[in-house]
Amino acid sequence: MSLIVQKFGGTSVGSTERIAAVASRIKRTREEGHDVVVVVSAMSGETDRLIRFAREIDPDPSPRELDVLLATGEQVTIALLSMSLLRLGCDARSYTGGQVLIRTDTAHTKARITRIDESRIREELGRSRVVVVAGFQGVDLDGNITTLGRGGSDTTAVALAAALDAHECQIFTDVDGVYTADPRIEPQARRLPFLVYEEMLELAGGGAKVLQIRAVEFASKYDVRLRVLSSFDEGEGTLIMPDDDSMEQPLISGVAYSRDEAKLTVLGVPDKPGIAYRTLGPISDANIEVDMIVQNVSRDGNTDMTFTVHRNDFERAMDILRANCRDMAAREVIGDDRIVKISLVGVGMRSHAGIASRMFKALADEGINIQMISTSEIKISVVTDERYLELAVRALHSEFGLGSDQAENGGPRVRELQAGRA
Amino acid sequence: MSLIVQKFGGTSVGSTERIAAVASRIKRTREEGHDVVVVVSAMSGETDRLIRFAREIDPDPSPRELDVLLATGEQVTIALLSMSLLRLGCDARSYTGGQVLIRTDTAHTKARITRIDESRIREELGRSRVVVVAGFQGVDLDGNITTLGRGGSDTTAVALAAALDAHECQIFTDVDGVYTADPRIEPQARRLPFLVYEEMLELAGGGAKVLQIRAVEFASKYDVRLRVLSSFDEGEGTLIMPDDDSMEQPLISGVAYSRDEAKLTVLGVPDKPGIAYRTLGPISDANIEVDMIVQNVSRDGNTDMTFTVHRNDFERAMDILRANCRDMAAREVIGDDRIVKISLVGVGMRSHAGIASRMFKALADEGINIQMISTSEIKISVVTDERYLELAVRALHSEFGLGSDQAENGGPRVRELQAGRA
Repeated sequence: MSLIVQKFGGTSVGSTERIAAVASRIKRTREEGHDVVVVVSAMSGETDRLIRFAREIDPDPSPRELDVLLATGEQVTIALLSMSLLRLGCDARSYTGGQVLIRTDTAHTKARITRIDESRIREELGRSRVVVVAGFQGVDLDGNITTLGRGGSDTTAVALAAALDAHECQIFTDVDGVYTADPRIEPQARRLPFLVYEEMLELAGGGAKVLQIRAVEFASKYDVRLRVLSSFDEGEGTLIMPDDDSMEQPLISGVAYSRDEAKLTVLGVPDKPGIAYRTLGPISDANIEVDMIVQNVSRDGNTDMTFTVHRNDFERAMDILRANCRDMAAREVIGDDRIVKISLVGVGMRSHAGIASRMFKALADEGINIQMISTSEIKISVVTDERYLELAVRALHSEFGLGSDQAENGGPRVRELQAGRA
Repeated sequence: MSLIVQKFGGTSVGSTERIAAVASRIKRTREEGHDVVVVVSAMSGETDRLIRFAREIDPDPSPRELDVLLATGEQVTIALLSMSLLRLGCDARSYTGGQVLIRTDTAHTKARITRIDESRIREELGRSRVVVVAGFQGVDLDGNITTLGRGGSDTTAVALAAALDAHECQIFTDVDGVYTADPRIEPQARRLPFLVYEEMLELAGGGAKVLQIRAVEFASKYDVRLRVLSSFDEGEGTLIMPDDDSMEQPLISGVAYSRDEAKLTVLGVPDKPGIAYRTLGPISDANIEVDMIVQNVSRDGNTDMTFTVHRNDFERAMDILRANCRDMAAREVIGDDRIVKISLVGVGMRSHAGIASRMFKALADEGINIQMISTSEIKISVVTDERYLELAVRALHSEFGLGSDQAENGGPRVRELQAGRA
């Protein structure tokens, strides 16, 4: 018998029927002999409904009051799920973030968890109750309600798993695990039985939307075993865990992509110290997040700098650059929001040369022009015109043998994990 | 400068537009130099929506979880109203019942307030903030969320006014005050500028739905001045306050009625001790509330007992009586759910004989047959066939000169109050 934290997102609890199905799933875990702490999000659509109300009153509402408002979304779900568990004869109690208690700093709408007092939960578990906790929310030192921002419920689940030293933190979603590529684009894509944190981080950063980066970082920091599962289907999902040198690493774990990119280039800036700051400072002052940044060697004392932002921020970023053009002493500012980012991720990459050149050749063979390149220790990302997205994903998936019937890659790890379970 | 508690019900905050209007109203009170604590209900329709969710999961859901669910309704309103006040440049902060804190017992869905810690509110008032408190809710000693049941927001407002020693507790509703009779039935009906608690209690018990009995009892117990006002129109409303012997009392304050009544009669029961208990015991065991009870003198050692219940409970009550007919040694059980109760209320009644006979004569002159009579110190209620409702209300309203252009009654008090304000 061990303690499992299970997290169900908005789609999984999107109606009372689905909440009842989730309750059955939890009951089954109880019957397998585990203690269960459940974290839930607001029912899908609920948060949008509340935000609509707020915007009707004020396009830029008070962050403190927005948190008071949004926290009700999860509170509705914990009550309904607890009722549903009790109805099934499974003893349960709901707790808001403030009741548990999950302490955060006072950064309303994007608070960080500072401490969890797990005594109340332990007490309830000792009474054989399932504890249903509202995700995404907490209270600051003065008892003000706070929310954790996007993906906050995943973070709550991981933080509770860390505080309670849980055996595993299971994140139930609408997909049945992490894939080598998006199955809607690459039918050969295969579910990965497991991954190490760094790979998941790079995949998420590369556009795979299964888990929030912040929750993976948190799990990595506290060595929480994280499992991605489907709320609707059976299956083992994908286990995300610490890197283990004894494991045989496949070269590449998967191909990720993001359609949400736009690139901006500042042409002909004097190649002097401080120019990167002068270019990007105003962008970050405007709270626009920058993803890739590429600066090439200079010619004639001038250089070009290119960076990518979220497509929604493109126009705003262009306006800022144009306004600062003279200040940067730049010749011209150009941009393109019809681009995509495609990333190849894998911890095995560390010890293997030649991955990048194989990647570029595979793309060249398909006639795909690469506009930007950026690399990390376990990821290579390229930017291309958006019309090449599907072609590029399939070419790379095939080149690195990621498909289920291909032998080069991944086979050993799959077998080893299955052996470990038997 | 004094402290005013203002309470706005569900219809008054039924949309973001209405919330904005409420915010303007509050701001005006601030600008008049008052400190303001606001209590709000859930937006109209919201509580029903939540209850529908709960019933989909369990027709008889866990009371603890029902409270967690329903408490979100008021939490949404406090956040939206605070945003709206801030938008108008009026500093404000929202507080849930648990944050304030309003302590209750653990009787979920019908909890009673046991204590209010007003220190946080005083602190916020000291910072010139409007404090917006969620009505209807509190927390028990273990921090579990509780709700106060029907009319709970009025009770929260009165309790806060008592705890804070407020100058006045203003209850904003969809009517502009308490009337001498329902204006939809008696066009001559006149708004009462003021009333004493006992009258308001008897009017509410008689069917006037302006205020919850519980809130009026609470106000009476702690001498809280209670004012009923319209959220939508201007006006002084009706002030409900302690009885003041120095005031000249009008004989009659108003005519109330209730269509929600049904009567049951047990015929031919032996007139022996214990028979009233044997008749009514099983009714109250079934949680059916009994209103009027009439037992007449016996003939031949047998008597008849008649009582009224809410019309919704009629069939259930009849079934219980029939099942107990033999146990009561009764000859027969009969019932009628097409009746109404009409009540004449006024503290002046205490010192004036002849009110009852005038009332009965006025009804007789209209050919209205009286089925039951019941009296208290300041109220006389009669039960008639429901088809006489409008006729009876108008006959009594006219007989006792309650209309605005009639001189016999109410005139002195109206004038005195207006003089007191000038």
